[in-house]
Amino acid sequence: MNKGCLQCTDFLLLTIALLMMPVSVGFAADEPQSPAAGLQTKLPADAAKVIHERGLKPDDILGAVSTFVPSGQYDDYMMFASGGHSGQMFVIGLPSMRLLRTIAVFEAESWQGYGFGVKETPLMNAPIGGDSQKVGWADTHHPALSETNGDYDGQFLFIGDKSHGRIAVIDLRDFETKQFADGTLMHNDHGGCFVTPNTEYIIEGAQYAEPLGGEYAPISQYKEKYRGLATFWKFDRQQGRIDIENSFAIELPPYWQDLADAGKGPSEGWVFMNSFNTEMATGGIEKGNPPFEAGTAQRDMDYLHVFNWKKAEALIAASKFETKNGFKLISLKTAIDEGVLFFIPEPKSPHGVDVTPSGKFMVVAGKLDPHVTIYSFDKMLKAIEAKDFEGNDEYGVPIIRFDAAMEAQVELGLGPLHTQFDNQGYAYTSLFLESAVARWTLGDDKFQAPEKPWTLVGKVPVQFNIGHLATTGGDTVNPEGKYLVALNKWSVDRFSKLGPLLPQNLQLVDIGKTGDTLKVLYDMPMGSGEPHYAQIIKADKLKTWDVYPEVGWNTLTQSKSDKAVMEGKIVRDGDNVEVYMPVIRSHFDPEHIEIKQGQHVTMHITNLERTIDATHGFSIAGYNIAASIEPGETVTIEFTADKPGVYPYYCLEFCSALHLEMAGYLMVKPKK
Amino acid sequence: MNKGCLQCTDFLLLTIALLMMPVSVGFAADEPQSPAAGLQTKLPADAAKVIHERGLKPDDILGAVSTFVPSGQYDDYMMFASGGHSGQMFVIGLPSMRLLRTIAVFEAESWQGYGFGVKETPLMNAPIGGDSQKVGWADTHHPALSETNGDYDGQFLFIGDKSHGRIAVIDLRDFETKQFADGTLMHNDHGGCFVTPNTEYIIEGAQYAEPLGGEYAPISQYKEKYRGLATFWKFDRQQGRIDIENSFAIELPPYWQDLADAGKGPSEGWVFMNSFNTEMATGGIEKGNPPFEAGTAQRDMDYLHVFNWKKAEALIAASKFETKNGFKLISLKTAIDEGVLFFIPEPKSPHGVDVTPSGKFMVVAGKLDPHVTIYSFDKMLKAIEAKDFEGNDEYGVPIIRFDAAMEAQVELGLGPLHTQFDNQGYAYTSLFLESAVARWTLGDDKFQAPEKPWTLVGKVPVQFNIGHLATTGGDTVNPEGKYLVALNKWSVDRFSKLGPLLPQNLQLVDIGKTGDTLKVLYDMPMGSGEPHYAQIIKADKLKTWDVYPEVGWNTLTQSKSDKAVMEGKIVRDGDNVEVYMPVIRSHFDPEHIEIKQGQHVTMHITNLERTIDATHGFSIAGYNIAASIEPGETVTIEFTADKPGVYPYYCLEFCSALHLEMAGYLMVKPKK
Repeated sequence: MNKGCLQCTDFLLLTIALLMMPVSVGFAADEPQSPAAGLQTKLPADAAKVIHERGLKPDDILGAVSTFVPSGQYDDYMMFASGGHSGQMFVIGLPSMRLLRTIAVFEAESWQGYGFGVKETPLMNAPIGGDSQKVGWADTHHPALSETNGDYDGQFLFIGDKSHGRIAVIDLRDFETKQFADGTLMHNDHGGCFVTPNTEYIIEGAQYAEPLGGEYAPISQYKEKYRGLATFWKFDRQQGRIDIENSFAIELPPYWQDLADAGKGPSEGWVFMNSFNTEMATGGIEKGNPPFEAGTAQRDMDYLHVFNWKKAEALIAASKFETKNGFKLISLKTAIDEGVLFFIPEPKSPHGVDVTPSGKFMVVAGKLDPHVTIYSFDKMLKAIEAKDFEGNDEYGVPIIRFDAAMEAQVELGLGPLHTQFDNQGYAYTSLFLESAVARWTLGDDKFQAPEKPWTLVGKVPVQFNIGHLATTGGDTVNPEGKYLVALNKWSVDRFSKLGPLLPQNLQLVDIGKTGDTLKVLYDMPMGSGEPHYAQIIKADKLKTWDVYPEVGWNTLTQSKSDKAVMEGKIVRDGDNVEVYMPVIRSHFDPEHIEIKQGQHVTMHITNLERTIDATHGFSIAGYNIAASIEPGETVTIEFTADKPGVYPYYCLEFCSALHLEMAGYLMVKPKK
Repeated sequence: MNKGCLQCTDFLLLTIALLMMPVSVGFAADEPQSPAAGLQTKLPADAAKVIHERGLKPDDILGAVSTFVPSGQYDDYMMFASGGHSGQMFVIGLPSMRLLRTIAVFEAESWQGYGFGVKETPLMNAPIGGDSQKVGWADTHHPALSETNGDYDGQFLFIGDKSHGRIAVIDLRDFETKQFADGTLMHNDHGGCFVTPNTEYIIEGAQYAEPLGGEYAPISQYKEKYRGLATFWKFDRQQGRIDIENSFAIELPPYWQDLADAGKGPSEGWVFMNSFNTEMATGGIEKGNPPFEAGTAQRDMDYLHVFNWKKAEALIAASKFETKNGFKLISLKTAIDEGVLFFIPEPKSPHGVDVTPSGKFMVVAGKLDPHVTIYSFDKMLKAIEAKDFEGNDEYGVPIIRFDAAMEAQVELGLGPLHTQFDNQGYAYTSLFLESAVARWTLGDDKFQAPEKPWTLVGKVPVQFNIGHLATTGGDTVNPEGKYLVALNKWSVDRFSKLGPLLPQNLQLVDIGKTGDTLKVLYDMPMGSGEPHYAQIIKADKLKTWDVYPEVGWNTLTQSKSDKAVMEGKIVRDGDNVEVYMPVIRSHFDPEHIEIKQGQHVTMHITNLERTIDATHGFSIAGYNIAASIEPGETVTIEFTADKPGVYPYYCLEFCSALHLEMAGYLMVKPKK
């Protein structure tokens, strides 16, 4: 065999043959074996040796070469994944599946200088009266990239906090969190964020019904006093802020509203939101009642909530709302009377509702039903116009006849949850119980698959218990259809033992070819949080800053700070001491700060660097201060020097060879 | 060429040829091209197509197949990297360079249920009087794995906090932090952790000199009142805790002590610690003084501190110490008089000191000197015995003659910082200014390289600004010598744009072959912290638990809790309400908790699961509570229900298909 003839086209057959032979026979790793071999073959021969030694199989080689990004080259896509109950966001590169960075959102994080004394962060400017002043964590669920004409525009990123009903705004010029909008009507809020096609609104559905506005009512008054909610947060793109004043909510029956999606194209102006527990089960296992897990799963159908948000917006403009806890609220009665809200039956305990790229269809997966159910917006609208209702629910909401709005059902398997789309006419649905991703065909949508419409094409197993899934551009009018990421909740045996708390497993799936061809390329452990959902954008759509535009940049206002200085000074006004401190490799100015115990110190620290990556840090022992000062940035910190003693301050970032020498002394002289 | 003959041994020449040909000519991706091709070749043909399409070069292919770990297979090594000023630890798999998980150490982290109300964490049991009660962040620097006979034993992990002079203990059975030991003599403490060969002590060197014990003195009294420090934390392996009572410190001159390493083999019983700023510069750029960066770099030599720790331990046993701020302190005078402390000149502003595998040599890198300097322990000891001193420093510490202790110097390049070792007789030194790793040969150590002793063999460029580096088993008597990881501080152009705060770049380097053969295999972005140092252990040395040993496990005491129950109950005693709550897929018991405003609630929540990965979470909106309850674990949370209203609680981990239904209601009835 060592001398056999082979065709070039049999490249991989050769690979396999080589893999089965001992190194010494099959090929030489370091030594040239024929006149043709030389320096050129040396390193690739190493690769073949490695493949043999590591026992890699053909699929492993495919995974390896499909995902490896050479040093200095960039990932094609960026995935923004929520951190689940880590409260943060993760940025992951595709295809390498490398965690590129964490974005601190709802939790303090000192590497980013977020939450430890630096005032130019939303953590230090939390909305008054909301949860942000009392809590230091969050359960981030659904991120949403801002959209223009239904496509990701790469400007802003929104993320919802299920545990406290909040939304955060991240500016993608600097990947920093700029604002928290804090819901005042409900404590939890599972189903955010979903944006309208031009980011007019960010939509958030409640989950566990409550008396609105933080009121008390015993659970025995569930039907009368508890309510659901849909919140429409108005976004001001110019300011880069949610405009809380012009946001509003719609009161809903005490079903447990869940995920939503905004209509686009023909369905623009509408929003679709799932619900479960239309049984209005109230649990109480300790009293011998059925637990929630059983009580909420009695009915075969729940209600897809259909909102006309343009009409709701007009109601707000016409002052047809009440104000509760300072927030505009459209009552359930008004929503019904004015034709803002309709229901359609949807099979059993649905989880995701996803609008297809054309905007013509709404795909619902009922996790206790093996099908996905596809509704036609056109049929829905005709039914509404014709009042083709099967009646009202017990709160008076008109229920569109299921058959009047349903377009198709496709049987996929066990535990369907969420659906994403590509540019080949396929939809992809996660199957939680089956631990698989199903590919199936859309009918009459923007793209057309070669197979028959509305049919299952294939499945790929994933490891294990997939929740959400995300495709490249998967929530837009222009999905890109190259990769899919399965956000698996359990990893079980996939990774090295790491103790009883296991990472999640994010698997990259190649969806580039038509037919039953889905293939898992890579397993990414996620042991820093539990990503709930993610969106994937082409990297070149982002217009990210390398350094801040000017020296002296206030990153909260995204404008020049009037506290920036090029030379250090200390201004004393009684017991107020104001320190203006420029920093540059490798010293602080001043290096000595002498104050008296009890004095109040305000420091304005400006990083004078214009070099990319020349970040400096600042910390003072014992005063809970940690700042990260990126090139051009000015930060403000304040503290009262209540303890006497000598406190070194130093640069936290390894900025230069003389980084350790970048230090100074805060000397607090004791009171007599 | 399509029909040409090739030898099997020319595998990679073929690869290159294929890479240069269009796909349609070179090979077919999906269609068999010859009778021999069939299903077996299909997927590998895909790999070749991908290599072509993605333009991968031979070195890229080598990197890809060297680092890809197939789904369900495990990494060979685990790297424990400090998180720098993120305050946490990172666990990274080698060769895949995947971040396997974060370990919450000094900062609250809600995914791990660490710091948000759960009492079984050191964050909720911080040492009285130390910084841990006042600060919520840390600057983690040097991790150290516990050792037995100079080798990593896989039991414990220690990590120092430079910003507050603390050490944390992590139990590697469950990868959870169990203890903070809080230094009371100094605010900062850069140079920890380094362990003695049987983990008798964890050594921590100070950095910025201060008046000891938190006292005040103006900087004009620097020489008289400011001091350096070396702390020896006693470790109780049986308890898995630092024994603070039996720990001690040694007073030092106000030089800026830095990293240390413990002797082993012939040098066991000794510790070696660097220092810089032996100039005793005090900065003050704002007054026209030289800044620290200049003032600390005047002298050509600083002092390597040589400690006889066995003798120091005997002094403690003999009560030859004073007590300051509750901590045992050996005065500088006693240390000198009793022969515990010696100095040796070391070239300029040294950073790392590293003991070779044999324990015979100490390698010092002076970052402002192009050489590494190697000292012989044997010569050092002889010089001490012969009192071969060049005199004393101004505090009276005897200075061993440089030439009496020096074994060799090797010129490596610009900015040498740290050194690691392998099992081929090589040492590896990071060159910060040159952005490179240098390989050089040891002489007369445990292993012997083929090249001449004490010579530079080769370098590999890294991207960019390398600080520490770590080899597999690199700090032990048995280094493994397969991989090296370069902990580069700057990434500049290596990764997708992520805003002005850039990730670090951790590069995996193949060190398996002798000679000038170092090769970078993989770039890992680290955008969640700035790892300062890391240690790498063979994965099979860890004896990690899959689930907790018994249902009802208290993870702080690592023993059965008496608060665990199999059935829920609520015990009311006046205004104290104690809730015993078992959880199992997919309900809490009880599902209703009715209390009155102002009552104090204690909850003991037990996860009854025995299935690996069946973790549940628990949270209550607005009460800043987030628990992660792993299989078998019992956690305790406490709060005062000061606000009336209805608060849903729910499971934070996506545990089952009915995870969303895993909820309950806390109903707080308002005061009349």
